[in-house]
Amino acid sequence: MHSAEFLTDLYEKTFGENNFNNSPKALYEPVYHIMGMKGKRIRPLLVLMANDAFGGDVKQALNPAFAMEVFHNFTLVHDDIMDGADIRRGEPTVHVKYGVNAGILAGDVMLAYAYQYLCNVPQQHIPGLIQLFNKTAIEIFEGQQMDMDFEKRTDVGEVEYLKMIEYKTSVLLACSLQIGAMLAGASEADQKLIYEFGLNLGLSFQIKDDYLDAFGEAEKVGKKIGGDILNNKKTYLFVSALNSNRRDDLLALLPETNEDKKINSVKALLEESGAKQKTLDKADELYRISQQSLAKVSLSDDAKKPLAKLAELINNREF
Amino acid sequence: MHSAEFLTDLYEKTFGENNFNNSPKALYEPVYHIMGMKGKRIRPLLVLMANDAFGGDVKQALNPAFAMEVFHNFTLVHDDIMDGADIRRGEPTVHVKYGVNAGILAGDVMLAYAYQYLCNVPQQHIPGLIQLFNKTAIEIFEGQQMDMDFEKRTDVGEVEYLKMIEYKTSVLLACSLQIGAMLAGASEADQKLIYEFGLNLGLSFQIKDDYLDAFGEAEKVGKKIGGDILNNKKTYLFVSALNSNRRDDLLALLPETNEDKKINSVKALLEESGAKQKTLDKADELYRISQQSLAKVSLSDDAKKPLAKLAELINNREF
Repeated sequence: MHSAEFLTDLYEKTFGENNFNNSPKALYEPVYHIMGMKGKRIRPLLVLMANDAFGGDVKQALNPAFAMEVFHNFTLVHDDIMDGADIRRGEPTVHVKYGVNAGILAGDVMLAYAYQYLCNVPQQHIPGLIQLFNKTAIEIFEGQQMDMDFEKRTDVGEVEYLKMIEYKTSVLLACSLQIGAMLAGASEADQKLIYEFGLNLGLSFQIKDDYLDAFGEAEKVGKKIGGDILNNKKTYLFVSALNSNRRDDLLALLPETNEDKKINSVKALLEESGAKQKTLDKADELYRISQQSLAKVSLSDDAKKPLAKLAELINNREF
Repeated sequence: MHSAEFLTDLYEKTFGENNFNNSPKALYEPVYHIMGMKGKRIRPLLVLMANDAFGGDVKQALNPAFAMEVFHNFTLVHDDIMDGADIRRGEPTVHVKYGVNAGILAGDVMLAYAYQYLCNVPQQHIPGLIQLFNKTAIEIFEGQQMDMDFEKRTDVGEVEYLKMIEYKTSVLLACSLQIGAMLAGASEADQKLIYEFGLNLGLSFQIKDDYLDAFGEAEKVGKKIGGDILNNKKTYLFVSALNSNRRDDLLALLPETNEDKKINSVKALLEESGAKQKTLDKADELYRISQQSLAKVSLSDDAKKPLAKLAELINNREF
C-alpha cells in the first residue's frame, strides 16, 4: 500500500512537462497554461489510490490518471468561457489570456488527449475504460447544461439539484475510482461499490462546499464569504430555502444591492428556515452512505485505509 | 458489392432520429439542429464503402460511420463559432440560433457521442479504432489552428498550406476509409493504402474546391464566385501566387474595396502568374497519386469499382 504522498509524487514526476504536442503554438500554449496551474490533483490521486488498494500495478494506472486531470482541466476551460469567469487559481483564465477561440480549440484538443491517455493501457482494458468514460463525459456535459439552466429558474427542486451536482461534479470522482479498480482487475461488484463510494462522497463534498461558501470562515476557506449568495447561485442551501415556507422572503431579498446587507439577510434566512441545518445534515448523510459503500468493498480494512482517510479529510475540512 | 445508393439508404434508415439523449433540452436541441441539416454524408459513406469493398459485414460498420458524421458536425459547430459564420446549408448556424455557450457545449457532447458510437463495435476492434481516431482528431484541431494562424499571415508556403488542408480536411476522409477497412479485417498494408488513397483524394478535392471558388461557374458551384478572394483566404491559388514573382502585385490588390474589381483583378493575376494552372496541375497530380494507392490495394478491380467511381466523380465535378 502506497501513501497518497507517494502516489502524488509519482504522478508529478511522470507528467512533468511536454505531455502534448508543441505545434501549432497558438493551440498548445493555452493547454500548457491551464495544465500548469497545478490544481489539487484529486482525480488522478483517486485513480491511483483505488488501483493501489485493489493491488494493481500503479504504473499502468498513470496514463488514465493523467487523462482524468486533462479532462477535468478541459471542462474548466470551456466552463470558464460559458460562465464568463476571468480568474482561476489566481491567474487569468484561458479565454481571457488567449481569446475565446483559443479556449474553445484548446479545450477540444484536450478532450482528444484525455481519450488518448485513457487508452494508453494494455489493450484488454480499453473497452471497459472507454465505455465508462464516455458515459461519464456525457453526464458531465448534461450536468453543466442543467447548472446553466438553473441560473434562470427559481423553482429548482432538491432532487434535480442533486442530479445536477451528481452529473457536474460527482461522476468524474466516481469514474476515477472505478478506472483505478478496473485496471487492478477488481470484481464488478467491487467496481460498483467503489463507484458509489465516490459518487456519494462527491455529493457530500459539493454540498459542504455550498455550505462553506456561506457559513465558512473567510481565512480558512481562502476566499470572500457569500459569493454564491451575491450571485443568487442555486446551491443546496438556496434550493432548501426556496422549498421552505420562507420562499417568498428569500425571493424578496434577491434584488438587494447592498452586498453586506444581502449576505447577512440571506444568511439569517437560511438559518431561520432550517436550510442551514438541512444542508449540514444532508452532507453528513451522504458521507455516511459513502462510508457504507466503502465498508462493503471486499478488501481488508488495511487496504481501504488510505481511501477512508482521504474521505474523512474531505468530510472534516473547513476550507 | 453494394452500391453507394444502397449504403447511403441503409445509413439513413438506421440513423433516422433519436440518436442522442433528449434531456436537458437546451443541450440536445442544438445537436439535433446541426445533425438535421442533412449534409452529403461523405464520411459515413466512405466507412461503409471501404468496409464493403473488403468484404465486411456493413451492419457492424454503421455505428462508426455515424461516429464520423457526428464528429464532422461537431467540428462544424465549433468552427462556425471561431469563424463567425452565420449561415450553414442555408440555415442559421448553431451559435447564431442558440448562442455561443450552447454551441460550445453541444459540440462537446457530440465529440463524446462520436467516441461512443465509434466504440459500439465488437470489442476486439476498439483499440485499433480508437488509436486511429484519437490521432485523427488531434490532427484536425491542429489543422484548424493552422488555418486560423494563416489568416494573419502573408508568408504561407506551399508545404505548410498542404499540411494544413491535410490535417483540417483530408485525414478525416482517410480515417473513415481505414476504419471501414479495419472492421472488415483488411491487412495493415491494405489499410495503409486505403488511407493514402483517401488522404490524397482529400487534398485533390480541397485544392479543386479552392480552384472552383475562383474559376468555377456560379450556377454549377451554387454560390457566388470569388468569396475566398474577397476574404483574402489563404487557398492553394493564393499561396501559389504569393510565392510567384507577382507577390507584390497580389499584396497591392488586397485592400481594394470595389468587390467586382477586386475579384476580376485577382483572377487575372492568378492566371498571369501561373497560379491558376499550377492549382489545376496540383489537383490532378494528387488525384493520380490517390489512384496509384487504390491500384495497389489487394482487391479485385470489381471490388474497388465503387470507390474508384466515387473518386472519379469527385475529381470531375465542376461544383
